[in-house]
Amino acid sequence: MMTTLIALDWGTSMLRACRLGKDGSVLEKRTLPYGVTKLPSSAANREEAFLQVYTEACGDWLRETPACPVIACGMIGSAQGWRQAPYIEAPCDIRQLAQQLTRVETGHGQYFSIVSGVWKDGDLPEVMRGEETQIAGALQHDERLRSTMARQGKALIALPGTHAKWVEVAQNRIAHIQTFMTGDLYDALAHHTILATTIRPSGQPDWEAFAQGVAVAQRYQESVGLLGTLFSVRSRLLCKHITAQQQADYLSGLVLGSELLAVLSRLTPEPDQEIPITFIGSEALCQRYIRALTYLECPYPVHISDGATERGLWYIAHLAGLLD
Amino acid sequence: MMTTLIALDWGTSMLRACRLGKDGSVLEKRTLPYGVTKLPSSAANREEAFLQVYTEACGDWLRETPACPVIACGMIGSAQGWRQAPYIEAPCDIRQLAQQLTRVETGHGQYFSIVSGVWKDGDLPEVMRGEETQIAGALQHDERLRSTMARQGKALIALPGTHAKWVEVAQNRIAHIQTFMTGDLYDALAHHTILATTIRPSGQPDWEAFAQGVAVAQRYQESVGLLGTLFSVRSRLLCKHITAQQQADYLSGLVLGSELLAVLSRLTPEPDQEIPITFIGSEALCQRYIRALTYLECPYPVHISDGATERGLWYIAHLAGLLD
Repeated sequence: MMTTLIALDWGTSMLRACRLGKDGSVLEKRTLPYGVTKLPSSAANREEAFLQVYTEACGDWLRETPACPVIACGMIGSAQGWRQAPYIEAPCDIRQLAQQLTRVETGHGQYFSIVSGVWKDGDLPEVMRGEETQIAGALQHDERLRSTMARQGKALIALPGTHAKWVEVAQNRIAHIQTFMTGDLYDALAHHTILATTIRPSGQPDWEAFAQGVAVAQRYQESVGLLGTLFSVRSRLLCKHITAQQQADYLSGLVLGSELLAVLSRLTPEPDQEIPITFIGSEALCQRYIRALTYLECPYPVHISDGATERGLWYIAHLAGLLD
Repeated sequence: MMTTLIALDWGTSMLRACRLGKDGSVLEKRTLPYGVTKLPSSAANREEAFLQVYTEACGDWLRETPACPVIACGMIGSAQGWRQAPYIEAPCDIRQLAQQLTRVETGHGQYFSIVSGVWKDGDLPEVMRGEETQIAGALQHDERLRSTMARQGKALIALPGTHAKWVEVAQNRIAHIQTFMTGDLYDALAHHTILATTIRPSGQPDWEAFAQGVAVAQRYQESVGLLGTLFSVRSRLLCKHITAQQQADYLSGLVLGSELLAVLSRLTPEPDQEIPITFIGSEALCQRYIRALTYLECPYPVHISDGATERGLWYIAHLAGLLD
């Protein structure tokens, strides 16, 4: 099938490219290890490096259909990216994303468009690049999320990862954003603190250890908090309550548990109202979060939405008239 | 003056040696960069490496006064140390520390003694090596702490550092221990997460940024908690609320603030009772904690106790009959 849109999810460590057919279906996917902080060093300069990766990602597709529009989201639009795409200030309507694309010339009269990030000022300012596109995609294409929006006009979207984000959408507006540095913190703790001396990667997840971590996070949330429970990853090993192979999942339970407890404590539904949670992200990580929510007896329905990025890019390209 | 006792504070990264005169006064001090995880690699094996460092630390002192007793505390008694010294289980009387020293032969009929660590089992098990000796020293020699103990029979001791410990002593017993991985976490965050990309060391502490961090920790303690405020170290920079030079002290305020808020929330003094806090540790770090306590309007008197380690080693050596 002919390529109608080339969609690039160009993040910090990876570039995911796909070409979409005329109904928005994915025809082909590629993943390149060239995120904006991982450009190949063979190029003469940064501009050349970006162009080289771009050509590797979709040059052949563009030769086949030279007039095909290309749209990108993610860190490619950051100060460390190819071209800085301005932020749109939240609360903002999802449709605003299509009104402010940043164009990058790629030579021979061709160009591609970068979707703006979203920011929110305040005491704890928030910024996102890429997640706004995933949210747009889920709002447009995820049936369960659409039915929640139709029923109660608002929903909660979870995007776990290095910097996990929880986003409240209301009437198709990005209303509230809260970032937890959960993945980044977990990696730093597991590899660059005293815990690194003993933690052993577990081949299979140890759900018993994970459950213990979540339970401890809950039990001590209001007294010593996360900072006061971290040392137990080590001391439980020294006291032989857990093994070195269990430390990773116990620690994971502590940090994910802390994040989820903070989120749940913020949710105050109207009487008779549910707060369905839509997860967007890696399947295994989303399942891990959902498992922790079960341990915490979260009363709300949860589900995982997939294909959100390419659907979001498709939707924004459509709104922006790129597909006409 | 003749050496009466050689006291070694042999930790993870450093060895601090001093020789004490007959009244326990410090005659000479040395610091060697050979903690138990930093032994010189020139030795044939670990045993040799320990002996080599030991000789460098106090070999000349022992040649002058060969019968002089040597006592050590800290990680030298851990599984990674020279000889494993068993833990004493808390709650325990400070005097028990003198009843169970671990002897290490150093050749030619000579030996030195390692003070046991203290542990406490439970949901959040606790272990310490070195701090028990500092507590013993402060309880014995710190006038303000002694007067608190005489007046109300209990006190709170803070030992900030890589793994900050807060210890409640009651009737000369180590009653409760709580570890916060504050220093370790701070270093991992500052050097091994997204924050590392921009944080610049500030020559002078930026107390304005530090105060902001403490205030944010307090404001969000009961909602998103520490995990939910960490990203603001980055986002406040992106939104130009702080500079790259301020990030380090803002982050320091967040993590120290979180620790102190957890500690303060646990304290429930009897009516008309104060809870004086005795700090033991590096002067600059203790002052930083005390500053944060002031921001948090901590109602209790605080002071810094110094010389706790050598005084503790002296006291334990005395109780154990090593000085007779």
